[in-house]
Amino acid sequence: MQPDPGAHKKRTDRFRRFAEVDCLIILDESNIRYLTGFTGSDGAFLVGADWMTLLVDGRYVTQAGLETRNLEIIEFKNRAETIAAIFQERGARFIGFEPAAVSYGEYLRLCDSLPQATLRPLSGRLDFLRAVKDAEEVGEIKKAIRVAEKALTDVMSLIKPGIMEAELAVELEYRMRCGGAERMSFETIVATGPDAALPHATPGRRRVALGDFLLIDYGAVVNGYHSDETRTFCVGRASERQQEAYRLVLEAHDRTLGAIRAGVSCGEIDRIARSFLAEKGMARYFSHGTGHGVGLEIHEAPRLAAGKADVLEAGMVVTVEPGVYFPGEWGIRIEDMALVESDGCEILTVPAADLLEL
Amino acid sequence: MQPDPGAHKKRTDRFRRFAEVDCLIILDESNIRYLTGFTGSDGAFLVGADWMTLLVDGRYVTQAGLETRNLEIIEFKNRAETIAAIFQERGARFIGFEPAAVSYGEYLRLCDSLPQATLRPLSGRLDFLRAVKDAEEVGEIKKAIRVAEKALTDVMSLIKPGIMEAELAVELEYRMRCGGAERMSFETIVATGPDAALPHATPGRRRVALGDFLLIDYGAVVNGYHSDETRTFCVGRASERQQEAYRLVLEAHDRTLGAIRAGVSCGEIDRIARSFLAEKGMARYFSHGTGHGVGLEIHEAPRLAAGKADVLEAGMVVTVEPGVYFPGEWGIRIEDMALVESDGCEILTVPAADLLEL
Repeated sequence: MQPDPGAHKKRTDRFRRFAEVDCLIILDESNIRYLTGFTGSDGAFLVGADWMTLLVDGRYVTQAGLETRNLEIIEFKNRAETIAAIFQERGARFIGFEPAAVSYGEYLRLCDSLPQATLRPLSGRLDFLRAVKDAEEVGEIKKAIRVAEKALTDVMSLIKPGIMEAELAVELEYRMRCGGAERMSFETIVATGPDAALPHATPGRRRVALGDFLLIDYGAVVNGYHSDETRTFCVGRASERQQEAYRLVLEAHDRTLGAIRAGVSCGEIDRIARSFLAEKGMARYFSHGTGHGVGLEIHEAPRLAAGKADVLEAGMVVTVEPGVYFPGEWGIRIEDMALVESDGCEILTVPAADLLEL
Repeated sequence: MQPDPGAHKKRTDRFRRFAEVDCLIILDESNIRYLTGFTGSDGAFLVGADWMTLLVDGRYVTQAGLETRNLEIIEFKNRAETIAAIFQERGARFIGFEPAAVSYGEYLRLCDSLPQATLRPLSGRLDFLRAVKDAEEVGEIKKAIRVAEKALTDVMSLIKPGIMEAELAVELEYRMRCGGAERMSFETIVATGPDAALPHATPGRRRVALGDFLLIDYGAVVNGYHSDETRTFCVGRASERQQEAYRLVLEAHDRTLGAIRAGVSCGEIDRIARSFLAEKGMARYFSHGTGHGVGLEIHEAPRLAAGKADVLEAGMVVTVEPGVYFPGEWGIRIEDMALVESDGCEILTVPAADLLEL
């Protein structure tokens, strides 16, 4: 992504204002990308009142120069030592850091090498600083969705009794890559029969059989932004019980999407899916949250889960993915992505519909 | 991988003996897999004197039951709270944890919820507890290498002027997946011309041209174990200068592999590659370490880098990967994998040879 020239600056100012500190250490790779454009790993982005320095290791010096603007690039051999040297030189006093991105071990090393400064965890809603997407980001997410959906359409003809889960996953991924995905959003899930009752099954040697549910949870990454979508098909004719379960999950999904708008709490969104399935006696088969934010990471703020008080804001991009899983039998999950708007939402994926019997 | 029935137990005992604590929290996913066989994410493995408990979230309960033996499986909603509840019930006093796998934020949450216990970072050589591989592990690494090398052989015919870096990466990955790779070891690097001077370039829209160096760094994962190998080819005839540079990197590579044996320090191994290239006036173009351990993670202990005092032991599996990069021009890296033995090493990959002009 090439955001408008001022976007990185504005984002960095937002991070800076978040904390009552004079300096920031940003170590989370997605935050570094968001704030600077640098796409490599193992970097560190240091921010002061009037300076910005990106530390990279030897592998990335040239690349960082091509990807970033208006900041100083310094090569490090030992990250903690170089961070300390720069902050010492700049007289940093209060340094904010990301508590989830800094390991306890790295925290100790930073404290040791910065005896004159106070390290302050950026607490609370740090995770939310990337939650509201700008137009360019939504555009990238839409590109990722299109690449993924086109690939699924292209492999539909392969879904027939006898094909192995792993084969289908490989063909789907190949088409996403050919279509422009730089990588998969996560390890593609293709699960059939009882495997579909494992919400995060690894595609294996099981072959699709007549009467099986086939669950495909997949996504593409384009310019760093992720898509995430799940479809459940039936191979051959579904039983009455399968049809009824699918219909209920789809209704939970539709009701939940219908409730998404700015101002509603994430816990309330989760409650809508969960209480509907509970009413139908399926609460215990719905063993995960209702959805999550998606962007530079596949799972990011907000989480649509029980009791979450965080409130949806216009511009957030979230999944809605109710599912039910009957161990040893089969499972169903239906997942779409939505852009939160002030008075509703835009469903970014082609929304799931009635059960497809293939 | 299905290690022999006692392997998980022996490994856990080794971790336990490592620390003077009565309990352990293991959060690192690769360590959890190593110790229990569980392949999911977000788990926690708690170990006491005579009990072992694996915590998993709702998505993984069924899977954890299938993958593990001889331990209690408990589902959590909030990981830190459930960890605390179990340790409280068991009367844990001194609890060891992995300082690199626990974020500062999670550390604070654990301290808050375990006021009666002392949390002790497992310091020092924790990273080395997986460094020496057993025969099963070496077998899995060899499988991963074979899958990857077969795929590269199969795409060689596609390497000709006009093919795009990204196209070649996609075709290579597809063949690795078809051959049985569960995923890529890392994002495949296919870099040509000046892109090959970026040691970690992302395959892009650049097309191979006559006279280009083409650098391919790739690997497959089989049963959790990684392969890692880099080849540099010339498309068409190489210039004298390209030939000379390749010859020097290959000699650095061969000399380094020739020095690998149990008892030699990792810093000494790095020095052999680095001092040879320095003698030839190329020190400043060799901008990364000489190699690293490989196993359940693509980069693990030991690191073959300047000044490292760690000593190679029989059973360690490492890469040897000298390279030189001329910004704006081209780059060369040659990487093979070796199993350290008492009196030398077994090169696990099909070792690199003279420059191939395609």
